[in-house]
Amino acid sequence: MLLCDIGNTSYHFYDAERDYKASVSDFEPSTLTETLYYISVNADLEKKLESLENWIDLRPFIDWKNYYDTMGIDRVMACEAIENGVIVDAGSAITVDVVKEGVFQGGFITPGVKIMQETYRQLSPRLDYSFNFDLDLDKMPKNSRDAISYGYLRLLQCEVSRHKAPLYLTGGDAAKMAKLFDSAIIDELLIFKGMNTIIKKASLC
Amino acid sequence: MLLCDIGNTSYHFYDAERDYKASVSDFEPSTLTETLYYISVNADLEKKLESLENWIDLRPFIDWKNYYDTMGIDRVMACEAIENGVIVDAGSAITVDVVKEGVFQGGFITPGVKIMQETYRQLSPRLDYSFNFDLDLDKMPKNSRDAISYGYLRLLQCEVSRHKAPLYLTGGDAAKMAKLFDSAIIDELLIFKGMNTIIKKASLC
Repeated sequence: MLLCDIGNTSYHFYDAERDYKASVSDFEPSTLTETLYYISVNADLEKKLESLENWIDLRPFIDWKNYYDTMGIDRVMACEAIENGVIVDAGSAITVDVVKEGVFQGGFITPGVKIMQETYRQLSPRLDYSFNFDLDLDKMPKNSRDAISYGYLRLLQCEVSRHKAPLYLTGGDAAKMAKLFDSAIIDELLIFKGMNTIIKKASLC
Repeated sequence: MLLCDIGNTSYHFYDAERDYKASVSDFEPSTLTETLYYISVNADLEKKLESLENWIDLRPFIDWKNYYDTMGIDRVMACEAIENGVIVDAGSAITVDVVKEGVFQGGFITPGVKIMQETYRQLSPRLDYSFNFDLDLDKMPKNSRDAISYGYLRLLQCEVSRHKAPLYLTGGDAAKMAKLFDSAIIDELLIFKGMNTIIKKASLC
């Protein structure tokens, strides 16, 4: 069974053995003839994918009563993958979602590493540093690089740790973020696991 | 006695009775003939002010051993104004500094309200909201506006409250920030109070 998570720049495939990516600009979805299940945040591809019978959108199979309309479908899928815990999806944005006994409790959004560094740079050229992920966040900073690293990382750590729940990290910056927490499960396939849950719930195969 | 806090765009004066501002582009400092004490982050004005005998820079009178070289002088002055507490200076950047028994313990920097809203807008046009300062930060959000408001405000609240110390708010967004905390002292003159402390310590008048 082939799964696909479609973003603005790439198709991310998972075939239960391995995951791989294809560029939105290069890849032609009609070249695939097998049945596959997808989620997409890419509005430009909507019509094309709807016209292909073997591309099955999972959005209509989600029970939206626990989520909210404008919530990113990748966040919904990550939530569907777990029963209890906090999910940190660290990409261009960082989303943090809480799930209790299989029910989404709410979540928040903070800017991702790259855009946050750019924001500090815009504030002042004197704050143009990469974040120090090895900083001891139990000590108040006394230099500029640590002052912005703490301002970004400690604040996230403080709120995420408060929930005292199993922590799941996914997204491109998951490994960096793992340095902030005593124990965290890095799972790059969380969204695909959630897609499998939806497929099973809906008895699609 | 006249005090002046000079930023990139304005001179902020305080004469012990009232505070008022003048634009850096319009105001000519040599038109003032009385003695005044200033701090400045404006590198362009440095030479001009040094040439004026009645403009006295307070920087050389600071005992820097407890601070760090690249720390903004406005932050140092706010720290000099208190004996114990946390200072949140909410301007284009938000600086948070901790002082214990008159000694700076460290501090951090997070982007201010305006630039942070712009950062969320850049992440996605669907996150182009003003922050909801009236949000109940004890509930996890279930809509986009609250998800970014929580992601910005709750994280700051979580870390600032952790210190369990008197909280001083200053800067242009102090009143908005006061909504996040049970008890906070809004003091727009904190930097001038610190300048007065330095003047007394150095027996300048």
